Amino acid sequence: MMKCYRNVRFLVVLATVLVLSRYCSALDVTGEWVGKISGPFDSQYTAQYAHVTLAAEGTKLSGAWGSFTVQGTLNGGKVELTFLDAGGKTAGSLKGAVSGETLTGDGSVTLARRPGGPAQPPMDVTWSLTRPVKAPAAAKTYDYEPKVFYSIYSAAEPPALHIFPGDTVNTRTMDTAGRDANAVRHGTGGDANVGPFYVEGALPGDTLVVKFSKIRVNKPVGRQGSRFNQHAVTQAYAVAAKYDANFNGNWKQEPEKGTATLPATPGLPHLTIPLKPMLGCISVAPPGEEAYRGTDLGVFGGNLDYNDNVEGVTMYMPVFHPGALLGFGDAHGAMGDGEVVGTGLETSVDVTFTVDVIKGYQTSQVRAETKDYLVSFGVSGSVPESIQLATTQLADWVKKDYKLTDSEIALFFGDVLKYDITELVDPHFDVVAKVPKSAVALLNK
Amino acid sequence: MMKCYRNVRFLVVLATVLVLSRYCSALDVTGEWVGKISGPFDSQYTAQYAHVTLAAEGTKLSGAWGSFTVQGTLNGGKVELTFLDAGGKTAGSLKGAVSGETLTGDGSVTLARRPGGPAQPPMDVTWSLTRPVKAPAAAKTYDYEPKVFYSIYSAAEPPALHIFPGDTVNTRTMDTAGRDANAVRHGTGGDANVGPFYVEGALPGDTLVVKFSKIRVNKPVGRQGSRFNQHAVTQAYAVAAKYDANFNGNWKQEPEKGTATLPATPGLPHLTIPLKPMLGCISVAPPGEEAYRGTDLGVFGGNLDYNDNVEGVTMYMPVFHPGALLGFGDAHGAMGDGEVVGTGLETSVDVTFTVDVIKGYQTSQVRAETKDYLVSFGVSGSVPESIQLATTQLADWVKKDYKLTDSEIALFFGDVLKYDITELVDPHFDVVAKVPKSAVALLNK
Repeated sequence: MMKCYRNVRFLVVLATVLVLSRYCSALDVTGEWVGKISGPFDSQYTAQYAHVTLAAEGTKLSGAWGSFTVQGTLNGGKVELTFLDAGGKTAGSLKGAVSGETLTGDGSVTLARRPGGPAQPPMDVTWSLTRPVKAPAAAKTYDYEPKVFYSIYSAAEPPALHIFPGDTVNTRTMDTAGRDANAVRHGTGGDANVGPFYVEGALPGDTLVVKFSKIRVNKPVGRQGSRFNQHAVTQAYAVAAKYDANFNGNWKQEPEKGTATLPATPGLPHLTIPLKPMLGCISVAPPGEEAYRGTDLGVFGGNLDYNDNVEGVTMYMPVFHPGALLGFGDAHGAMGDGEVVGTGLETSVDVTFTVDVIKGYQTSQVRAETKDYLVSFGVSGSVPESIQLATTQLADWVKKDYKLTDSEIALFFGDVLKYDITELVDPHFDVVAKVPKSAVALLNK
Repeated sequence: MMKCYRNVRFLVVLATVLVLSRYCSALDVTGEWVGKISGPFDSQYTAQYAHVTLAAEGTKLSGAWGSFTVQGTLNGGKVELTFLDAGGKTAGSLKGAVSGETLTGDGSVTLARRPGGPAQPPMDVTWSLTRPVKAPAAAKTYDYEPKVFYSIYSAAEPPALHIFPGDTVNTRTMDTAGRDANAVRHGTGGDANVGPFYVEGALPGDTLVVKFSKIRVNKPVGRQGSRFNQHAVTQAYAVAAKYDANFNGNWKQEPEKGTATLPATPGLPHLTIPLKPMLGCISVAPPGEEAYRGTDLGVFGGNLDYNDNVEGVTMYMPVFHPGALLGFGDAHGAMGDGEVVGTGLETSVDVTFTVDVIKGYQTSQVRAETKDYLVSFGVSGSVPESIQLATTQLADWVKKDYKLTDSEIALFFGDVLKYDITELVDPHFDVVAKVPKSAVALLNK
């Protein structure tokens, strides 16, 4: 009996150790998580994501879930979390359990029904915490030969490549008609984009940073329109204009010389202009289940058609879906402001880009940093509204970064603000507000 | 008797010589005239003017009346003129008589009821031909110390100075509040303009050319606003903004250093920006009996508020009245695009300008030539319409000067056109369309 008892005691100890070790391994929740909350949100936002950090001390948990502070317990595989807002007030509570490598459960929280919206009374939600995919020890460089192009901006498109912040990709685009450098046609055109590139670690509420270190024309012909769009000239001008239906707008592009030359016409017998290759389309997947054709543009970017989105530009894109789902295309060898003939020198280009993610910060639309300017895009259904959106975003951005008051930013912009009318011809209008970096350098930081 | 007869014959010969010499002096109509036709035109155009040239051969007259060819006779002090249009078709006939140094009469012509309008059925008119004021042998330079300023754009303002093409004027402006370099206040402010300068030889249908060779800040303070105008930011931004009613926007201007410095604020403790002095207002008298307040703008120029109307700019203003009636004022030491806070650094400046006249050619609104661009202003009640007006005028201008087809100009602009949003805050909106002179230099001329 004694021996038996001792054996039984040994088995009990063993079992306890085994059970505890199993719990202990499940209890190792310290570190980074991806938080997902599903609830009765606005229809296109079936889930809201957040970066979550947790630290365990015994059974006690503390950390942050997006902008909320969290406190809680993890005990016997059961988890309880309380959300506290910036003022320390309770903003919800979650309950759940460990399930393999994830935690899941339900609860009640005071979230907005859509990102950026007003907080609502407590809503019943379900939730999960999953570990983010771990980045390799060193950044990688990919040579990505595109096989498929999308003429729709939508989170439904399957990612073409998964990359991590710091990674670099060499690839190339098609022209707006879907033709590559060798004039081989891929798909149906309509501003077909390369991608989507899934950027690990990017979550809704973040900003995707994309630096384009190379944008180079890779085909010998740039096709261009030769009729003014209706938004560029008066109706009387358009009625009186006599356009040549056979006008040859196929420029000879010579990237090695950095020039494009028009076939001689009577009035333009020797017109050679400098190439300034730009990406017409740069996008992330639009919010929720929204889907837009390739020629369109919005808060997700898309067909921004900005002639300073050239080699060296860094784009700041609001992230609306995990992975951001970056795409780009519709390059122009050159283009005037407003894209007044509905095209630039439509071309394909070789592209190299590097990605990064700014976590937990996002502005309302796309931003950029060019060689000389901080750039804010305003996309809407009218030029006047686009002006307001672009100025407002830029004011919010510079105010935040340089800790200026409303009077200070207004006065500063009153002296240094610049506008570009980027395009007038697409389904939405695009205006850029920008400030010279030389002026920003005068600010206290 | 014989002697008496001979005396009588002598007297008859003498009288004949005298009479003939009197007619001969009246018959000397060869040369330049100012033609004026009054008729049942649109209410604000009580008269239409034209440059007229006549050549007499015996009793026969030939020449041009504006765009019409004229043929006629001058016989015994009675004049008859027939108008022929570009196709050689009769477009009217005038009858009249010599009266001292002028010719006057009546007749019937197929003119438009307003400049630029469609030709109407023959209208009964009265007319006159007067000699233009003769220019001195050499161009003059005037130092004009302004004593009076006008806050209304109107042909009713009496000219301050009569000058000729080629003449140069040194003068100075008040700031928008009507204060001069010594802060002495002249008048009530409201974008008070210096002038009007009556430019001899300028007639409606012409273009007044004004080259500003000097625009220099002449006072130590530039006053600036610090609240965004409603057209610059979203309503939500404006509602949320907390402006400091006591914010000190009085920059210290140091023209000798070329800088302006803001009194230190917590967020802007050492903000010094370069001065780039510009004339906010440059105007001719508006058409007919129209009259606009100093802050307004239109086809006559006025408060264009373009931040590239700086020293060195050449303005091309459509002339609506004899003498053009040039004015300017509302200088800014510096100003961002859009004049988004409703002001620049409001200042007075020293100005030197030289005038010229392009006869018989006019575009629809104001144009300019800056250091780097051909510039077309589009002023209207909305930004989109201003874009169309500016682009259209620029297209018409470059098409004409460089003999391009509609397809050629559209394609060219599709690559090289630039826009500036000049101001959003005045009674009308102002957008600039422009092409780089470096690009224009690539065109066949």
